[in-house]
Amino acid sequence: MEHITLKDIEQMEKIFRLNLINSVTGFKSANLIATSSEEGITNVAVFSSITHLGSNPPFIGFVLRPTTVPRHTYKNIKDTGIYTINHIHQGITDKAHYSSAKHENSEFEACQLNEEYIEGFAAPFVKESHIKLGMSFQEEIPIPSNDTLLIVGKVEHIVLDKKYIAKDGQIDLDLAETVAISGLNNYHKTAIQGSYAYARVGDFPKNVRN
Amino acid sequence: MEHITLKDIEQMEKIFRLNLINSVTGFKSANLIATSSEEGITNVAVFSSITHLGSNPPFIGFVLRPTTVPRHTYKNIKDTGIYTINHIHQGITDKAHYSSAKHENSEFEACQLNEEYIEGFAAPFVKESHIKLGMSFQEEIPIPSNDTLLIVGKVEHIVLDKKYIAKDGQIDLDLAETVAISGLNNYHKTAIQGSYAYARVGDFPKNVRN
Repeated sequence: MEHITLKDIEQMEKIFRLNLINSVTGFKSANLIATSSEEGITNVAVFSSITHLGSNPPFIGFVLRPTTVPRHTYKNIKDTGIYTINHIHQGITDKAHYSSAKHENSEFEACQLNEEYIEGFAAPFVKESHIKLGMSFQEEIPIPSNDTLLIVGKVEHIVLDKKYIAKDGQIDLDLAETVAISGLNNYHKTAIQGSYAYARVGDFPKNVRN
Repeated sequence: MEHITLKDIEQMEKIFRLNLINSVTGFKSANLIATSSEEGITNVAVFSSITHLGSNPPFIGFVLRPTTVPRHTYKNIKDTGIYTINHIHQGITDKAHYSSAKHENSEFEACQLNEEYIEGFAAPFVKESHIKLGMSFQEEIPIPSNDTLLIVGKVEHIVLDKKYIAKDGQIDLDLAETVAISGLNNYHKTAIQGSYAYARVGDFPKNVRN
């Protein structure tokens, strides 16, 4: 077994460390956050830090470094109070990844992605995405350890094809071809391996997919 | 297209809402957090909110609701200042899932998982896990929106088989059979779909896995 210490990490070559530490937490969610400026200039960028915070009210968080790209996302969210979260699926990983480049104008056009709107909500959705969330900004929480921000938002809208929702409310992410991210630039497709009932003492989990 | 509003979400049956909102962010990381009390009673629990915060220093966060189970995890981290994060792989999803039950004694024994230690670090690792992190507690950040906490830790140790680390530092999570979680009780295996170079303007991403 390889044993890597904090001292080893500190002394690593920068890109090697970036790749290692970005893959060490396991798989990450793969989403495009889209916003519009007050002047109507739209913006879209990959985020892999989107995290469930609570179901009732439905709160979602993501981590942002306000001093670096994609700073437009932060400014637009603060100015307009709304944004969208759009799942990246297998068919659009290349376009989604391209949004990480430092585009000067709308990333939608540069990335060959299309905007879509719903009535009464001014932030753009990514038309190509299969699962789309309309979010309202709730609060920003500074993370002093490394000058990042946790942005907390509330789910105002969910737009998706009905076929992705199972009877118990779960979204079938395999069917929707939603991908998972590892590291900085790897997109993975998925297949169910195990599903278990709510865990209770004395009742060792049985895989209901077997 | 189905359009679900916040009002619809608020009026949903509780379990349906839990399942829907827990799957709406996409795939989640699948890890076991293990701790030991000051008296040496060990504890292990599934967490799907573990998130990369930064690479240098290597910071990782996760979300915890201190007023509910697994409260042992929180108390032990605060008391001892250390914990471990252990990837869940395909071979242990049933054992890992069982840690969610409200066990009274050590979850290690109840879940048929084994403890493993490294010199100079008192928190237990999960022996069966393929990728293991030894963490030091850094800070806790209240999330006022829903009374949860973001726990920030620093990576002190990484223990894994060398074969999982690629030349560029990335961990091959497919090879390590690390799973991804959707919703509350689904574990997914993965396969690479696309890998792209660092995105630059004018250079549309090409999939290096094709």
